[in-house]
Amino acid sequence: MKAEIVNIGDELLIGQVVNTNAAWLGEQLSLAGITVIMTVTIPDSRDAILEALAEAEKRSDLVLITGGLGPTKDDVTKLTLCDYFNTKLVFHQASYENVEKRFHARGLKVKETNRRQAEIPESCTPIMNHNGTAPGMWFEKGSTIYVSLPGVPYELQPMVSDFILPRLRESFKLPVILKKTILTQGIGESWIAETISEWEDSLPGNIKLAYLPQPGLVRIRLTVVGEDKEEAVKELENRVEELIALLPDYFFGYDDETLEEIIGRLLNEEGKTLGTAESCTGGYIAHLITSIPGSSAYFKGSVVAYSNEVKEDILKVRKETLIKYGAVSKETVTEMASGIRNHFRTDYSIAVSGIAGPEGGTEEKPVGTTCIAIASPEKVVARRFLFGDHRGRNIRIAALTALNMLRKQLLNHLIT
Amino acid sequence: MKAEIVNIGDELLIGQVVNTNAAWLGEQLSLAGITVIMTVTIPDSRDAILEALAEAEKRSDLVLITGGLGPTKDDVTKLTLCDYFNTKLVFHQASYENVEKRFHARGLKVKETNRRQAEIPESCTPIMNHNGTAPGMWFEKGSTIYVSLPGVPYELQPMVSDFILPRLRESFKLPVILKKTILTQGIGESWIAETISEWEDSLPGNIKLAYLPQPGLVRIRLTVVGEDKEEAVKELENRVEELIALLPDYFFGYDDETLEEIIGRLLNEEGKTLGTAESCTGGYIAHLITSIPGSSAYFKGSVVAYSNEVKEDILKVRKETLIKYGAVSKETVTEMASGIRNHFRTDYSIAVSGIAGPEGGTEEKPVGTTCIAIASPEKVVARRFLFGDHRGRNIRIAALTALNMLRKQLLNHLIT
Repeated sequence: MKAEIVNIGDELLIGQVVNTNAAWLGEQLSLAGITVIMTVTIPDSRDAILEALAEAEKRSDLVLITGGLGPTKDDVTKLTLCDYFNTKLVFHQASYENVEKRFHARGLKVKETNRRQAEIPESCTPIMNHNGTAPGMWFEKGSTIYVSLPGVPYELQPMVSDFILPRLRESFKLPVILKKTILTQGIGESWIAETISEWEDSLPGNIKLAYLPQPGLVRIRLTVVGEDKEEAVKELENRVEELIALLPDYFFGYDDETLEEIIGRLLNEEGKTLGTAESCTGGYIAHLITSIPGSSAYFKGSVVAYSNEVKEDILKVRKETLIKYGAVSKETVTEMASGIRNHFRTDYSIAVSGIAGPEGGTEEKPVGTTCIAIASPEKVVARRFLFGDHRGRNIRIAALTALNMLRKQLLNHLIT
Repeated sequence: MKAEIVNIGDELLIGQVVNTNAAWLGEQLSLAGITVIMTVTIPDSRDAILEALAEAEKRSDLVLITGGLGPTKDDVTKLTLCDYFNTKLVFHQASYENVEKRFHARGLKVKETNRRQAEIPESCTPIMNHNGTAPGMWFEKGSTIYVSLPGVPYELQPMVSDFILPRLRESFKLPVILKKTILTQGIGESWIAETISEWEDSLPGNIKLAYLPQPGLVRIRLTVVGEDKEEAVKELENRVEELIALLPDYFFGYDDETLEEIIGRLLNEEGKTLGTAESCTGGYIAHLITSIPGSSAYFKGSVVAYSNEVKEDILKVRKETLIKYGAVSKETVTEMASGIRNHFRTDYSIAVSGIAGPEGGTEEKPVGTTCIAIASPEKVVARRFLFGDHRGRNIRIAALTALNMLRKQLLNHLIT
C-alpha cells in the first residue's frame, strides 16, 4: 500500500511553522507497513489543492491531507474537497454537537463561523475530533482513499491512531515492517561503511540500511519488510546481532537511548556516584547528566574549571603539572579526575580539558585537541583525541566521548 | 519568482528526522521576496528524483534540492542529476582539496568513498561546502535554476546565505524585504500581544508582525516589504523603536543575539569576571556562557552543586540556612552566590537553586519553584520564581532568567 501526505498551509511554506505532522504521520504509516512515497506541502489555494489531489490519485492508494480546516476565510480545504469529489456541504448533527459541547464547556456561545465547522461534504465518512471543532473526512474515489485532517498535531494524532489506522488494518492486508536503530560512538560514517561493506552488500532485498550521522554519533537503522511478523522479528534480531558484532567497540545502545540515560542506569544499578571536572566542555557534560530525571541520586556535581587558578585551588592540580605538560594534557586531566573524585567523595569521575576553538590552537596542540580522563575506584584512564575545528561540535563530541569512556569503565567493572 | 523545495531522504518520509530544512529554506526564500509554491519530500530513489525534477520544471523558476549527497551507497542524488541534466561526473580538484583539508586537519587519510565526493556533474557550477565534504551544485535548464545541496543543516545554511541568495539577487530584480527581530525575556506571548495590541492594529499593510515564542523568550519579528531600500530601512527602524518603547523592561536584544553573548560583551567591556553556582540548572548556565568563543577571558568557572554536601563544603552555605529555609530558597542562593564569588574571586556571580521536576515538588514549593541570586561587588540580589512543570523547559527558563538578571545588574552598574 502506497501513501502520500499532502500538507496544506502557507505558514509551512514560509517557514513560520516546522512541519512536524509529516514526520509523525510518516512514522505511524511506516510502522503500519504502509510505504510513504511522498510528502507535499502546498499553499491554502484551491488550484494547488485540486492539482495535488489529482496528482496523488495517479500514484497513491492512500492520501492523508492535513490543514486548512479552520473557521477562517483563508481555510479553503473543505470547499475544494467538495469540488474534487463532486459533492456538496451538508449540516452534520453529531459534529455540531461536538462543537457545541466544546464551546459550552468553556462557557462560550457557538458563533456562525464555528457552526460552519459542522458542515461536511455529503459523500464523506466523518471522523470525530475529540480535541477540536473540525471533523476529519474519509473519501474514496476509484481505488484511492483520501482522508482530510485538521493541522493541529494534538487533534490529528488521536484521529489517526484511533480511527484511521484501525480502519485501514481491517480493510487491507498490510505487510509487516520492523525497524531498529543501532547507536555508535567514536567512529565516523565512512569508517563504518568500510567496516561493514561486505556484510551490507550481502543483505537481502527486504532489508534496508540507513546511516544517520550526528556530531559525535552515528545511528544505523535497519528496516525489515516481511509478511509474517514472527519471521520478521527473528530476521531483524539476527541482523542487528550481526551488525553489532562487526562494531563491538563502538556500539552503545538502541533507538532513542542516550549515553546520559545509559550511564544513569548503570550508576543506579551499581549504587555508585559520579562527579565531573570540566574545562573545555564548560558544564555541558553536567548539563547532559542532569537533564535525566532522578540524576540527583547518583550525580553529586561538577567543577567547571575554566581558569588554571580553579584547577589548582579546587581540583588540586599541581602547578608543576600545569607548567610541564600544559592544561590540555593527559597528566592534567588525570589530576583533575582524581581531584574531583576526592573532593566530592564520588566513586567515579570524568575530567575533560581541551582546545574547543576557534582560537587557542598551537602547532603541537591544534584546535580540537582534547584530553579526557575517567577515574574509578581502581584507577584513572586518560586518553588524548583530536576532534574538529567547530567549537560547538567539539564540545558535543568531547562530552559524548567522555560519557562513552565512562560507560565502558562501568561495564568493565560490572563484568570483573 | 516561484520556487520549489525538493527534499530527498527516506529518513524524512518515515519520520525519523523532522524536515527543518524545508522551514529554514522557506523562510530565507520568502524574506528574499521569492514565493515558495511547494515543498516535496521524496525517497532516495532514482525514479522519484527524476519525476520530481521534471514536475518542478513545469511550475517553478528555482528548485532547491536537499539531501542524498553522502558518501554511502544509499545516496543516489548525484548520479541521478547527471542523468537528468544529461552530463557525467568529473573530478573537481577544488572540492577534492576541501575534502583533503578536512581529513588532514583531523589526521585522517582520504578514502575512496570520500574521494568520490569530489566528483561533480560536468555541467554544474560547484558551490564550496565549508562545513562538510559534499559540494553544492548549481544547474540551469531552460529558464529553471536547480541547486542541489547537502541535507545537513549547518552545511546547507551558509551555502544558501553566502552563495545562492547573493547570486539570485544579482540576476533578478527581487522586492526589498527587510526584517528585524526584537528579543524579549520575562514576559509571555499573550501579555505582549495585549500590551502592544493598539500599536499592532495601527500598522500599515506592508508591515507584518510575527510572534516567535521559545521557552523563556519571546522573539517578535517585524517584516517590511517595499520597493525602495532606503525608505524600507527607515520605516523598519522607526517601527522597531516604537515597539521597544512599548516593552522597555523586557527587551534585551536583536535578531540572533543571545543573552550569553550580550553578557560576555558587557563583562569584556568592564574588564570584569564571572563565576556561577548551579543546582537545578546543572551546568547549563556555564554551558551557555562557555559556548561563546573567548569566554575564558571573563568566565572563571562554575560549581554545579547537585548535593547539599557540595553546597556546604565548597560554596560555604551554612547548614542552618539549608535546614531553616531549604535548598530552594532566596537565603540559600544568596549564600551560594557569595560563596562562589569569594571562592573563585570573581567580580560577579550567578547562583540558582530550584525544583526542575518531574519529582521533588511540595505544596509549599511545587515543581518549577526556582530561586536565583546575582552577586555584584556592591550587593546580592535574590528573587523567587515559579516556572512550569517540564524539566527541560524549567532548566532553560531558569538559565535565561538568571542571565537576564545579570545583564540588568551589569547595565545598572555601567549607568551608576
